[in-house]
Amino acid sequence: MNGGTGNETRGPLAIIAGGGVLPFAIADAAIARGRRVVLFLVKGAADPARVNSHTHHWIRVTQVKTLMALMRKEGCRDIVLIGAMNRPSFWQVVSSLGEIAGVLPALISGLRGGDNHLLSNVARVAERNGFHVVGGHEVAPEILVPAGSVSSRTPTASQHESIQHGLQLLNAIGPFDVGQGVVVIGQNVVAVEGIEGTDAMLARVRDLRSAGRITTKRGEGVLVKAPKPQQDRRFDLPAIGPRTIRGVEEAGLAGIAVVAGQTVIAEPEEFMREADRAKVFVVAVEAKA
Amino acid sequence: MNGGTGNETRGPLAIIAGGGVLPFAIADAAIARGRRVVLFLVKGAADPARVNSHTHHWIRVTQVKTLMALMRKEGCRDIVLIGAMNRPSFWQVVSSLGEIAGVLPALISGLRGGDNHLLSNVARVAERNGFHVVGGHEVAPEILVPAGSVSSRTPTASQHESIQHGLQLLNAIGPFDVGQGVVVIGQNVVAVEGIEGTDAMLARVRDLRSAGRITTKRGEGVLVKAPKPQQDRRFDLPAIGPRTIRGVEEAGLAGIAVVAGQTVIAEPEEFMREADRAKVFVVAVEAKA
Repeated sequence: MNGGTGNETRGPLAIIAGGGVLPFAIADAAIARGRRVVLFLVKGAADPARVNSHTHHWIRVTQVKTLMALMRKEGCRDIVLIGAMNRPSFWQVVSSLGEIAGVLPALISGLRGGDNHLLSNVARVAERNGFHVVGGHEVAPEILVPAGSVSSRTPTASQHESIQHGLQLLNAIGPFDVGQGVVVIGQNVVAVEGIEGTDAMLARVRDLRSAGRITTKRGEGVLVKAPKPQQDRRFDLPAIGPRTIRGVEEAGLAGIAVVAGQTVIAEPEEFMREADRAKVFVVAVEAKA
Repeated sequence: MNGGTGNETRGPLAIIAGGGVLPFAIADAAIARGRRVVLFLVKGAADPARVNSHTHHWIRVTQVKTLMALMRKEGCRDIVLIGAMNRPSFWQVVSSLGEIAGVLPALISGLRGGDNHLLSNVARVAERNGFHVVGGHEVAPEILVPAGSVSSRTPTASQHESIQHGLQLLNAIGPFDVGQGVVVIGQNVVAVEGIEGTDAMLARVRDLRSAGRITTKRGEGVLVKAPKPQQDRRFDLPAIGPRTIRGVEEAGLAGIAVVAGQTVIAEPEEFMREADRAKVFVVAVEAKA
């Protein structure tokens, strides 16, 4: 399973893998398309239980020279850097990469502008070293959610209004390179995602409900996620997975809305099962609010 | 101390008091101006330890008829409804008030548009019943922060940039009737306030730092607070107090920026002492970002 047949013109694909299932989903999809894939698993971040028959190397975040040497030895030129699900580790990788390549000032200037600028700078550093950073969705477009209902439930008219309200808010804050998610109940914005991430935001909504700060009945409200307008989609796309469903369920919300063609679902089979079990709708809508 | 001299043309002022020190700060300022004040303290919300020689009545959130009768008996026509610091209780007050007055549908339609619309509707209900809802800052304008430095520290040039970035973000989300606060470190938006409130947002920033999700050194970053553009300033102005200073300190931030003339400081003396002790700057800037 770890060797590809055909489609080798660009050489094997290196996936530098942080936590979560997404690196493996991309690996499997690329392999299914006939590409050879080599996983570079970041120790302490990547999940050992998910390594199946994949060709892989474990690396430490500080072993940047080793990583580059190994990637060259494996003949990899294209890199997928999946950091969205485990950002702190990647920030460390990035810093090390910067130090080695002697471009720390560029990275530091990148830090001022948020994650997105930072990761764009990483891509530049990697490219200066002869690598080409590509997005998981470029090598495996089937991981992107198409427009329409993803689960068997669908939003009501008023939930559609909440979705539009959330998209408009995300659109308004887009220029500020802030979080990608918002929770809207009716027309009330209950929570806005900062660097804490979607899971933590959903836990906050759950706690606000427990504390009596949200008094609307369970089964109302929507988690809306959208990419930032200026987001470099090579390494950071909104992702949802089974855990998102459980977070939405515990927060007492009705469903999830994401942007079609710009969102990744991790573990899609379990995701669907969980959505149906939890009676949560999942819908992918067009980008414009 | 509970009787005023002169300035009685409008009769005594009723302050319906939720939690926090603000109702008492307004009461004391109005009394100092020679107005008679009657406090209606909401049980479970207002702080008994702060009731000094004030004329007061304790009420339950459900005793709306009793409240209206007492206010009439005391000769109060003007009401200050200080709910910003203890919103959930006031939501309950509001619902009860709505039921009694038979205007629940109007209130429910208010709920759709966020707190601000809701409170505007409460004001309408109270006014239909012969009362006049005024803002704490109208009866005691000295509680508003004037432009300039509030504490002895001042922001650096880069912290001024963070403040502008934060104000621009708050301005962008204004139309959505969402929170009034944001935490900006450098040019990175770290947290956006939803219904959890400023203290909870600061606790989140503290926890993100403990968890290694914020790696910039302590003593950088700013809490920026601004009123929502469409906010009805009679009952909801951004407020900061000694607890805000401690939250900022624990979050490892450098300071606080608020909007001049549109922000209230609770317990100003302790606030200044705490700001200086914690080496936190506090600055009031002009409204436009």
